[in-house]
Amino acid sequence: SGLVHVENPHLDSMEEDILYHLDLGTKTHNLPAMFGDIKFVCVGGSPNRMRAFAQFMHKELGLEGDGEDLADICAGTDRYAMYRAGPVLSISHGMGIPSISIMLHELIKLLHHAKCRDVTIIRIGTSGGLGIEAGSVVITDRALDSSLRPRFEQVVLDDVVVRSTELDTDLAEELLTCSREIPDFPTLIGHTMCTYDFYEGQGRLDGALCSFSSEKKLEYLRRAYDAGVRNIEMESTAFAALCRLCGLRGESSCSGFHLL
Amino acid sequence: SGLVHVENPHLDSMEEDILYHLDLGTKTHNLPAMFGDIKFVCVGGSPNRMRAFAQFMHKELGLEGDGEDLADICAGTDRYAMYRAGPVLSISHGMGIPSISIMLHELIKLLHHAKCRDVTIIRIGTSGGLGIEAGSVVITDRALDSSLRPRFEQVVLDDVVVRSTELDTDLAEELLTCSREIPDFPTLIGHTMCTYDFYEGQGRLDGALCSFSSEKKLEYLRRAYDAGVRNIEMESTAFAALCRLCGLRGESSCSGFHLL
Repeated sequence: SGLVHVENPHLDSMEEDILYHLDLGTKTHNLPAMFGDIKFVCVGGSPNRMRAFAQFMHKELGLEGDGEDLADICAGTDRYAMYRAGPVLSISHGMGIPSISIMLHELIKLLHHAKCRDVTIIRIGTSGGLGIEAGSVVITDRALDSSLRPRFEQVVLDDVVVRSTELDTDLAEELLTCSREIPDFPTLIGHTMCTYDFYEGQGRLDGALCSFSSEKKLEYLRRAYDAGVRNIEMESTAFAALCRLCGLRGESSCSGFHLL
Repeated sequence: SGLVHVENPHLDSMEEDILYHLDLGTKTHNLPAMFGDIKFVCVGGSPNRMRAFAQFMHKELGLEGDGEDLADICAGTDRYAMYRAGPVLSISHGMGIPSISIMLHELIKLLHHAKCRDVTIIRIGTSGGLGIEAGSVVITDRALDSSLRPRFEQVVLDDVVVRSTELDTDLAEELLTCSREIPDFPTLIGHTMCTYDFYEGQGRLDGALCSFSSEKKLEYLRRAYDAGVRNIEMESTAFAALCRLCGLRGESSCSGFHLL
């Protein structure tokens, strides 16, 4: 049907669904009228960058006005920022799996309540690049955890549930094709490693704590490279798992800064 | 000596230390002049709330001016916001362990470079309360993970390192004593459970995904309550572990909203 689905039998019996961290709700907002025609959702960590992206989309789509005064749809909260430009929604998710997970739970319910169809979601963020030209865009075919396994371990109450982190390979190819139409836009498809920590978890030598040598760091990053990892970031496994479970066609494509 | 210490031998040989996510650095900023007299750091998730807290402190301390126009010291980035009022620094950390960890690594290095002494750090946030009056403040004596263990598992490269999550018990008692001087300010000391997920991880029935019954949820929360947990949030284990390792006298005191 192309609808975004929730996997929660309790929702049907709830009189009202409040999307706390987006400052939206089914009783306070007409979600189908506000969002029913959304076809693309782009998400990234930084609120300012997601506003700039919405302004860019506004211009690209030739919409009326200069797009400079786009309103933050989630202005009532500072947890996340949300902008729209035509059928494109642009939302910030903060840093790390817990932060993007809260946003995705509420976004998925939003798209479900709004009865959106055939929605494509793309994470556009920054990452550390492995063995790639700085500034290259890595389109993720598979998100791996810090043990290089293509899985996301979700704690549900106190059980650990393992979820798949495959992304949409057709969409990855489509994005790669698009990138080839743009000159000097180095883009590749590869695996993306997702960690819970930026400093110790990604082999950085400049955190407040560091117990490993430069050699150990390089050995770790090379092992990741040999397993097909081309960039490291902090959200892709949860993003891939949640999109997949709820029928969102999802892709992660992040520009990579030099790590190895 | 009371100094904040880093546990990283690489830092000494670095010509410059850039605190990327705070938009500060050792070459671009005179950190001892800017921060050397800081004695208290208060951290919480929301940037707006941390600005409001700094304004409140400005008034409480009787500092000059009305405090309405406090400048965001990290204005060059939207990852975190930082304000100061006299010897008190007020910083946002976003949501979840990965987000607070990035901020704490850079804050600890900041306090180290600034040669601060005898710094007390307090997390002031919101949380879900277990069996307590809504709005009560829970002062954490010990942060537990979702398996009710007083530990923080940190992935370093691909090893799992286990760290202690004990907080400063003298400071907890001091804060409790302070709270008793304020009328109608329900405050207690208890364990705090820290999860990686807000919806499935804390037994909420209103996420996009929910595979458990209301009974299972209550059973889980009751088990946590019986183990001494009085509130659940998403940052305390990493906060406790990092503060402890770097010589920061730390405490977490969160107001609890009704969960059980």
